[in-house]
Amino acid sequence: MSTQHPDQVSFLNGRTRLYGIVGDPIEQVRSPEMITWELQQRGCNAVLVPLHVRESEFDTVMPALQRLANLDGLVFTIPFKARAFGMASHLGPQAQQVGAVNALKRLRAGDWVGEIFDGAGCVEAFRRRGLPLAGQRVMLIGLGGAGSAIAAAVAGQQPARLRLHDLDAARCERVAAIARRASPATQVEIGPPVVDGIDVLMNASPVGMLGDARLPIAVDALPASLIVFDAIVKPEVTPLLALAQRSGCRIVQGREMMRGQIARMVDFFLEEG
Amino acid sequence: MSTQHPDQVSFLNGRTRLYGIVGDPIEQVRSPEMITWELQQRGCNAVLVPLHVRESEFDTVMPALQRLANLDGLVFTIPFKARAFGMASHLGPQAQQVGAVNALKRLRAGDWVGEIFDGAGCVEAFRRRGLPLAGQRVMLIGLGGAGSAIAAAVAGQQPARLRLHDLDAARCERVAAIARRASPATQVEIGPPVVDGIDVLMNASPVGMLGDARLPIAVDALPASLIVFDAIVKPEVTPLLALAQRSGCRIVQGREMMRGQIARMVDFFLEEG
Repeated sequence: MSTQHPDQVSFLNGRTRLYGIVGDPIEQVRSPEMITWELQQRGCNAVLVPLHVRESEFDTVMPALQRLANLDGLVFTIPFKARAFGMASHLGPQAQQVGAVNALKRLRAGDWVGEIFDGAGCVEAFRRRGLPLAGQRVMLIGLGGAGSAIAAAVAGQQPARLRLHDLDAARCERVAAIARRASPATQVEIGPPVVDGIDVLMNASPVGMLGDARLPIAVDALPASLIVFDAIVKPEVTPLLALAQRSGCRIVQGREMMRGQIARMVDFFLEEG
Repeated sequence: MSTQHPDQVSFLNGRTRLYGIVGDPIEQVRSPEMITWELQQRGCNAVLVPLHVRESEFDTVMPALQRLANLDGLVFTIPFKARAFGMASHLGPQAQQVGAVNALKRLRAGDWVGEIFDGAGCVEAFRRRGLPLAGQRVMLIGLGGAGSAIAAAVAGQQPARLRLHDLDAARCERVAAIARRASPATQVEIGPPVVDGIDVLMNASPVGMLGDARLPIAVDALPASLIVFDAIVKPEVTPLLALAQRSGCRIVQGREMMRGQIARMVDFFLEEG
């Protein structure tokens, strides 16, 4: 008797398992359409929905959300990646390396394991575009949750040089140590954003997101030989990427990093815990 | 740049507004596919998802869920209809009449208004099937949230007789008073389930839901002239409805009541608050 009626959608029902992406703001996220697509491609009755939790309410709202019996996993975006780390009772290998998580999965016993995929997604985006990071001189701006994961994963590709910048000096020291552990042969340094002597410029700060017209680096033009990556997914072409395009640079978009991490994140969600 | 890519679904994104149906268990609910269909038919970027809240955790989980900034409305099913009543700071006209709610909507000011649609949905289902309730002799079993709304709405159709049964005697008295106020001309009485002298038998108790093989009335057969309605949506043919079919009765399914209330519930969710 459960035939398909014309007055119902096919992608949701009472048995649908839920995943959520938690952020503030939330409109810019891409996970709902991309992770839901990947879940449904694999035959799962599951969706990933946007969960707009205000920053001031994170600590009261999240413990209750974790009690939802049909919620199996969470993804975290700005400004919650650091706080998500505190919600994990176990850590995956990448999360252990960088000390941050961007995804949590409920284990059968009821506790939660955290892992981070931004770094793997960024490296995968460069790999898919045929742009090796080995031997390159990389400038990375922004060392929050995503930035620290990107630093660790990029270091793992053995670049010649990795220059790190964040407004928070303690963060710089912490991430530089992570990068040095990941690649002792790489020249890891801390300093303000530069493009001279740099092959790849990466932005993992929120500067340029949504309506923010600012650039994460104070320049009017970029060398055409520079490869420019921005981790921001909305807008797809940030002010930095627009400047890079005008300067004749090759660009790698946040959306490509997203694509690079979707399959790994869904593997993580679906493997037996 | 926001063209449709083949690696994403079209029905969810970061701007999607959320509605939820709250129940324990949750697998049997039909609102996710039916209300989401109605919302999307009207051009809304919105979905209604199942929210499985365990009965013991309702009071801790719900206040936090209400803080989700992109959650605009909630529907309640077994066993939460009575408790949802306490979450409403304002009541719609039908909720005022029966003292129960099955839907809550966030008002712009941030508080929540409650309304109940089960009764209107049941009466609409009979109307669509061309089965008038006016002048009929009706037996109604189960006077919880849905049952009390059905009693009030059926009484509003001016049946000749309305016999009410629930295991809770205080509930019987309360709902009988509601029905008498709705239709002073109807003979409203309280008593055990019978089919003699009855034209329409209605079940609004959970007996027969999901794997429950029991009947809400202790009979082996039913008069073929009886019209039998069951508010349960899963299974679509409950043990009571199966007996009715074997007895040659016309049946009205819970699914038809659902259909009858979907449009009204979405009107309620979308009208300016």
